[in-house]
Amino acid sequence: MTLPIGVLISGSGSNLQALIDRMEVGVLDVTIQAVISNVPGVKGLERAANHGIFSQTLSHRNYPDRASYDRIVVRVLRDAGVQAVVLAGFMRLVGPELLAAFPGRVLNIHPALLPSFPGLHAQEQAAAYGVRLAGCTVHFVDEEVDHGPIIIQAAVPALPGEEADALGDRILALEHRIFPQAVQWLAEDRLEVQGRQVVVRPGERLLATRNDLPPCLVFPPLEEGF
Amino acid sequence: MTLPIGVLISGSGSNLQALIDRMEVGVLDVTIQAVISNVPGVKGLERAANHGIFSQTLSHRNYPDRASYDRIVVRVLRDAGVQAVVLAGFMRLVGPELLAAFPGRVLNIHPALLPSFPGLHAQEQAAAYGVRLAGCTVHFVDEEVDHGPIIIQAAVPALPGEEADALGDRILALEHRIFPQAVQWLAEDRLEVQGRQVVVRPGERLLATRNDLPPCLVFPPLEEGF
Repeated sequence: MTLPIGVLISGSGSNLQALIDRMEVGVLDVTIQAVISNVPGVKGLERAANHGIFSQTLSHRNYPDRASYDRIVVRVLRDAGVQAVVLAGFMRLVGPELLAAFPGRVLNIHPALLPSFPGLHAQEQAAAYGVRLAGCTVHFVDEEVDHGPIIIQAAVPALPGEEADALGDRILALEHRIFPQAVQWLAEDRLEVQGRQVVVRPGERLLATRNDLPPCLVFPPLEEGF
Repeated sequence: MTLPIGVLISGSGSNLQALIDRMEVGVLDVTIQAVISNVPGVKGLERAANHGIFSQTLSHRNYPDRASYDRIVVRVLRDAGVQAVVLAGFMRLVGPELLAAFPGRVLNIHPALLPSFPGLHAQEQAAAYGVRLAGCTVHFVDEEVDHGPIIIQAAVPALPGEEADALGDRILALEHRIFPQAVQWLAEDRLEVQGRQVVVRPGERLLATRNDLPPCLVFPPLEEGF
């Protein structure tokens, strides 16, 4: 059983590519039934074509308001047999029409350790703020920007004075790992939402418990004696 | 050469204890010249006494406003020969009088990955939000709450539905490691502030560079194939 999903993009679609790559090596149990871009001519559309995936450009500029845009997106996704939706660099707020059509089945990836730095240009925000740990977050989508219940987070070191691009690349490399993982948990129906808490139910491989947590991450690194 | 510091507390002073412990094993090159608590009878005062450290209770309730309170704090710190000030669970905003008296030499530790969850009860805020990575931050103090340039951050996994106390304990264990480290960098005069960026200048032990970064931290952990 594979989960039929739709992927919404606005740009290069590197997170779409990460999903495709994991599908093609057989570890991600989804089929991408549709890729929708709200921006014409982006590289993500080319990626879909390269892998024989149906795609469509639906420019929000052709619709009078968010509700009517969301309705056409929902119709295309439903016609393609989609059962869950993942936002992979989709630069638009999704509205209640889309969320109601796929309740509890819309995921987003954001390039920051939410709730820090929601919204646009998160990597630039983090670099300018001077954080020493940056990262990315996959979460369920709700009607607020970058706000829904968190599924998985990853932290990376951030160097003082580093270019936002360099930090962004390091974050992006992790996005490409945690996003397919979160989608796979969705495909295996292992995500249980309790208010704002997301429990990942144990699968074939056991998850960490309180007595078996991964180590911490400290940056700059501690020196001898600390 | 050791740096004479003052420590401001409001409660149990476990971060004060972490400083004392590192001093006593000889890895932290400071002397604590004064401990000031704005709350009478707290355990931190007892810890100071146990180690022969001068301490004084200065209740903010006895002063008409922040400026007059800060002035008496500055006077006590100066009389004790203090050259830098660390806030170790000091639950009051410090004002311009204190910052001007020790320019660029006031540090604070906050139990969250700033800029997430500033202010009171950060661990509870993080647990309620449902983050999967929590942590702590040592930063220079400015006139905004939990806002100044960041020196060091540490991230720990946070379990869904976990009690804030359990998460708080895990964060506190890391506070006890990164706080003395940051104070030691200050004592070695290795912290260079450029706007919001804090560069830790190399010491005897080399710090990580872009080609030598510590690994990332992902939670929940990635499963095989991701």
